[in-house]
Amino acid sequence: MTSFPFYLDCDTGIDDALALAYLLASPQADVRGIGAVSGNVSAAVGARNSLDLLELAGHAHIPVALGAHDPLAGSFGGGAPWVHGANGIGEVSLAASSVSLAPETAAEMLVRLAHEHPGTLRVLAIGPLTNIAEALGLEPSLPELVAEITIMGGAALAPGNLTPVAEANIANDPEAAAVVLSAGWNVTLVPLDVTMTNVLEENHRQELLASSGAVPRALGEMLGYYFRFYEGIFGRACSAMHDPLAAALAVGAVTAAVAPVVHVDVDTTSGPGRGQTVCDLRGLYMDYPEQPGARCRVVLSLEDDFAPHLVERLLNYFEIPVVGPVETALVGG
Amino acid sequence: MTSFPFYLDCDTGIDDALALAYLLASPQADVRGIGAVSGNVSAAVGARNSLDLLELAGHAHIPVALGAHDPLAGSFGGGAPWVHGANGIGEVSLAASSVSLAPETAAEMLVRLAHEHPGTLRVLAIGPLTNIAEALGLEPSLPELVAEITIMGGAALAPGNLTPVAEANIANDPEAAAVVLSAGWNVTLVPLDVTMTNVLEENHRQELLASSGAVPRALGEMLGYYFRFYEGIFGRACSAMHDPLAAALAVGAVTAAVAPVVHVDVDTTSGPGRGQTVCDLRGLYMDYPEQPGARCRVVLSLEDDFAPHLVERLLNYFEIPVVGPVETALVGG
Repeated sequence: MTSFPFYLDCDTGIDDALALAYLLASPQADVRGIGAVSGNVSAAVGARNSLDLLELAGHAHIPVALGAHDPLAGSFGGGAPWVHGANGIGEVSLAASSVSLAPETAAEMLVRLAHEHPGTLRVLAIGPLTNIAEALGLEPSLPELVAEITIMGGAALAPGNLTPVAEANIANDPEAAAVVLSAGWNVTLVPLDVTMTNVLEENHRQELLASSGAVPRALGEMLGYYFRFYEGIFGRACSAMHDPLAAALAVGAVTAAVAPVVHVDVDTTSGPGRGQTVCDLRGLYMDYPEQPGARCRVVLSLEDDFAPHLVERLLNYFEIPVVGPVETALVGG
Repeated sequence: MTSFPFYLDCDTGIDDALALAYLLASPQADVRGIGAVSGNVSAAVGARNSLDLLELAGHAHIPVALGAHDPLAGSFGGGAPWVHGANGIGEVSLAASSVSLAPETAAEMLVRLAHEHPGTLRVLAIGPLTNIAEALGLEPSLPELVAEITIMGGAALAPGNLTPVAEANIANDPEAAAVVLSAGWNVTLVPLDVTMTNVLEENHRQELLASSGAVPRALGEMLGYYFRFYEGIFGRACSAMHDPLAAALAVGAVTAAVAPVVHVDVDTTSGPGRGQTVCDLRGLYMDYPEQPGARCRVVLSLEDDFAPHLVERLLNYFEIPVVGPVETALVGG
């Protein structure tokens, strides 16, 4: 299976942790670097979570770079501890990695990787888009260097989550989102329309908790916290699958059913629409006729149920192989 | 059947013509006055169309008042002749009524009727909300005097029609819509979510054309023009039923299936969301829990198919009674 170099930009975050683990478990992805941005937690806390997760997953060699603490305009608002816990990973304690942060910013890392892998680098952005906007400032030809960019963010026809019409990743830095979505590259946008309708249930969480692997077990524990927040949204213990679904679409492991390529504006006003991804879906009634010049593929639905695939991939990859007595003897011998 | 006094505010318009005819045909409605506002056509052309339709329908006694030519901010943009025809009623020629416009503005008429029918007047607004906003300026206690206001306008989870997120009635005067939706009365909003999913088909139009009544035949002819516009939206000859559906909800002849009472803001910025009705539908995943202080009922779906009811009511009311030979002889005698 062809494996592509990936740069992951995240604000780790419970569902970011799932996305990171999913990417590591995906044969289609070769994660070459991870940037941290403030969102669910501060960039510094998110970077720490990414380092610790990489250590737990046996991938401590993947560099983690600190990115922007504040959005392009204004300042970091403190994250969403009621969703992700004060430490960002549902109050689960991970052993602290001894690996240091990379000696470059997240934006610099992205630009470096784009130059090292011209035309093949995949970017997966699952936090506010501050680092990506900064990278475009550092290297205006980034859209030509990067093969694909997939963004978890926005709400098209679905309600928002931070405001009635705005999703948190975009709303936490609308100015950056406006830069990134108008940068002249092909974007796959994974909005709430599809992430709120592909839900992880308690039975899935129990499967993770029952794993012999430390990573699935830790993710299952984090999801306990996440589920409690989403109980107020869905009325039962379960959760949306924002970031891992974006990861699965980025690696091509799941297929979009409805995903029109349309014009998308980001609302950067101070009005009630601030942070909204204004997607031109007026073609809805005719199966979305082509829009000349449009470059944003907005994923509205999937072909298949996502949660079973997610759980299976995590369990298969992170399961500790059972070592039988003969093999033990051989090793011992 | 209880009949309520109605004030109709409209920009007549093909679907306004249908709504007006539907109201006249409805035993629940006693139309006491009609105000004209610029929207589909100029207020003056819309008032003329209303007068001529009333004449054709045998209701020339209902007064028509001229309302605002320009929205609260800016100026009238020329209407939508590509949707409704240059004359607003699909290039159908109606005999000119000899009745003059009422000696009051539309806003003054609404205020007068509210005082004449305190606590019982129903308002149905199916154009931009300029006249209603002006009436609120003339009489701040209008919300206490009016029993109910039903507005065709906005887009909640459906795409807009004038912009990706804004519907024409609201987008043609967002400042007025913001005034009306925050005026402290209970509003029923009938947005594109429900009007674009309740469609009149060619067979319905043929039923109108085959009527013995002049009004259904004229409406059927107008709909030929409207259908040609909507062929570009739906891919077949048919049309949305914006205004008559709002009329049917206002008279209580059709029942909403999903219609949460939620907070609604109108975007009055100059950004990409200008004219959007920002409806807080984040409760979608839990059957819309109650929102304290919310007063806008947003109709998202209907219990039953609307078009057959509309056609039946128009045909029944406007059919010319067949006069048999015996009766003729009696009349003649």
